[in-house]
Amino acid sequence: MTLPSDPNFLAEDRRIGSILSHVGDKWSILVVMLLGAGPRRFNDIKRSLDGISQRMLTLTLRGLERDGMVTRTIFPTIPPRVEYALTPLGASSRKPIEVLVEWVVTHLPEIEAARASFAQRQQED
Amino acid sequence: MTLPSDPNFLAEDRRIGSILSHVGDKWSILVVMLLGAGPRRFNDIKRSLDGISQRMLTLTLRGLERDGMVTRTIFPTIPPRVEYALTPLGASSRKPIEVLVEWVVTHLPEIEAARASFAQRQQED
Repeated sequence: MTLPSDPNFLAEDRRIGSILSHVGDKWSILVVMLLGAGPRRFNDIKRSLDGISQRMLTLTLRGLERDGMVTRTIFPTIPPRVEYALTPLGASSRKPIEVLVEWVVTHLPEIEAARASFAQRQQED
Repeated sequence: MTLPSDPNFLAEDRRIGSILSHVGDKWSILVVMLLGAGPRRFNDIKRSLDGISQRMLTLTLRGLERDGMVTRTIFPTIPPRVEYALTPLGASSRKPIEVLVEWVVTHLPEIEAARASFAQRQQED
């Protein structure tokens, strides 16, 4: 697939923009990476994602479910067990997400150096 | 580079998370794609990104400048001309960003079908 060279096609298309904001979201990225290893329960996910609040994880999972990337299955045990898993669509997003995360990890020192230098320039102004 | 299979390494590392939120941001993605074609002036960029506010574009460009992905050059003309351009670091993010955008564009119909079906299920509940 070829992308138009002028990104206007994206700005015009709010639908794509809204999905981009979502797919690029830090917590969504982490949940997709985590579920890539297999289905998990809510509290399992919460424990693995150090620092996420109950509410933020609920919102993240609901957003992924809404976009068809994650399924939520309730097993009728006592108490009921709720499991989250990637759909084939969700699994197909793992590759682009990993490419993005790898870029960030690889360039982290460069980005942090830029931030430090930017902060210093601001102080000098 | 291999990523650890447990994404805990990211959740623990707030620095990576903060860059991810930023790189995955819709407007940042569009600005990087646009500047991929060459340097542009503020108003040029604003016109191309239909729907971005003055303030949001200012914040987006400042964020990219802070992260070392974009340079802001002031030419001493009257009135001064301010030009934005990708740095080599910014240019290196084009590939992962394009992979992500291509995924969204390719899977848009599937995601929209999922959203419609999700909305219907919510109504039925």
